[in-house]
Amino acid sequence: MVNANTMHMSDHPVTKVVIIGAGHVAYHLAIGFHRIGVQVVQIVNRSKKNGSRLAEKVGARYIPDIRMVDQHADLYLIAVTDAAISLVCEPVFFNQGVLVHTSGSVDMTVLQPFSHHTGVFYPLQTFRNNRKIRWKEIPLCIEGNTPQTIKSLDHLARQLSHQVYTLSSAQRKILHLTAVFAGNFTNFMYSIAEDLLQKNNLPFELVKPLIKQTTRNIHHSGLFHLQTGPAIREEHQVIEEHLKMLAEHENYKEIYDVISKSIIEVKKTHVKL
Amino acid sequence: MVNANTMHMSDHPVTKVVIIGAGHVAYHLAIGFHRIGVQVVQIVNRSKKNGSRLAEKVGARYIPDIRMVDQHADLYLIAVTDAAISLVCEPVFFNQGVLVHTSGSVDMTVLQPFSHHTGVFYPLQTFRNNRKIRWKEIPLCIEGNTPQTIKSLDHLARQLSHQVYTLSSAQRKILHLTAVFAGNFTNFMYSIAEDLLQKNNLPFELVKPLIKQTTRNIHHSGLFHLQTGPAIREEHQVIEEHLKMLAEHENYKEIYDVISKSIIEVKKTHVKL
Repeated sequence: MVNANTMHMSDHPVTKVVIIGAGHVAYHLAIGFHRIGVQVVQIVNRSKKNGSRLAEKVGARYIPDIRMVDQHADLYLIAVTDAAISLVCEPVFFNQGVLVHTSGSVDMTVLQPFSHHTGVFYPLQTFRNNRKIRWKEIPLCIEGNTPQTIKSLDHLARQLSHQVYTLSSAQRKILHLTAVFAGNFTNFMYSIAEDLLQKNNLPFELVKPLIKQTTRNIHHSGLFHLQTGPAIREEHQVIEEHLKMLAEHENYKEIYDVISKSIIEVKKTHVKL
Repeated sequence: MVNANTMHMSDHPVTKVVIIGAGHVAYHLAIGFHRIGVQVVQIVNRSKKNGSRLAEKVGARYIPDIRMVDQHADLYLIAVTDAAISLVCEPVFFNQGVLVHTSGSVDMTVLQPFSHHTGVFYPLQTFRNNRKIRWKEIPLCIEGNTPQTIKSLDHLARQLSHQVYTLSSAQRKILHLTAVFAGNFTNFMYSIAEDLLQKNNLPFELVKPLIKQTTRNIHHSGLFHLQTGPAIREEHQVIEEHLKMLAEHENYKEIYDVISKSIIEVKKTHVKL
């Protein structure tokens, strides 16, 4: 599969990027590339408002239609929802350059019909808010269909971040799953605490030091051994009282019940070991 | 209910403390009091090993039996498991000084049979590990059966921490419940991520930046609006794939399922608002 185009890529680094999408990931990556001197030549987006705003920010050209794409870029980066990845590529074949998506859960092979050089450029972070992203600290997980593609993506990724990992699609999917627990679900736990405190006229400030300490504890290993609270101590009376207090919050109650039972179950397996 | 003893307390601050228990909370509070110049006169603990070790550390006398308690202390602080609080007090009536427990979930009234002056001194933090505790940053939630008791506990608490709150038993119980979500359950989410990564030979380092950013986000308000991930985006295909990947981890699978459904449910109520 080594052809002229592959040779081309291994010879010079990524200097021209086209970004497809204008959501949170597209936004932060465009700005990140711009800052390290990688030229963002086009922003492709159906909605003009977000697309042209981002294009202006990084000195790129906004185009509404993928068929207007510049065929001389080194990298085509798709940062759209999982379901839309194949759809946005449909009208075009990318003759030159590498075509990547930025998803944690989509297999690299979905890009195969659309380019000779395919890959993944998955930044493991939550991009919901508009704060500045410290790219240097964000793990970038790359994958490529050839050694040259990997080399090219690795070179680009290392300019952006100190933490670059080459992972298979299977490994990336595991990582994405664990990120759901460590990030998404954790934020939901915080939001439940915020909601319950607010409904009882207590300030969320009260639990912030606990949250910070719990996060500082991740630098230990064997986190289950740091587990505190009613479940690990099997204080069934407290658990029952908490469930009663959650009577009006069926969702929270079920979460409390399932997690508490699971902590008690996992404790048993730890004792056995 | 204002009697001679109450007068006594309001007149001078807490300078002599007896600590009942030698677990994590007892340990950190004894050291905290010792540091701010409050004398820990006795450590009461059935197990000599932990009791005498802690006593030595803070220049206190170790006693194995509550009936040997010094009746001239200003504060008797019970830091034992919830179920043991009444039991440890049983043999004694504390004629003088304030009797408090340190639990988030036990009503102050359980102490009523054992002292004229009762209260609660609840530090909201996770004390499992042996690291130094920064008391100044830890919320101390106090409660007292008289204004004088509250005043006395408030004065002591403010020497230890910048964050002192006077809460009713009902408020403290709500707070404790929210701490289970924000602290205990969050640590469990981290430990699930750690476990899954380890089983797949991937380093936990990979998700640490995500955890840190998620925690930094608590300084926003309306945390549910920061929710990212497959559930909030209702990516059912990703959710299904994740559940399949968790087939061998029944506990984790159920947690994933329940939390994801709950996020989708809560999203509906937010859209309505």
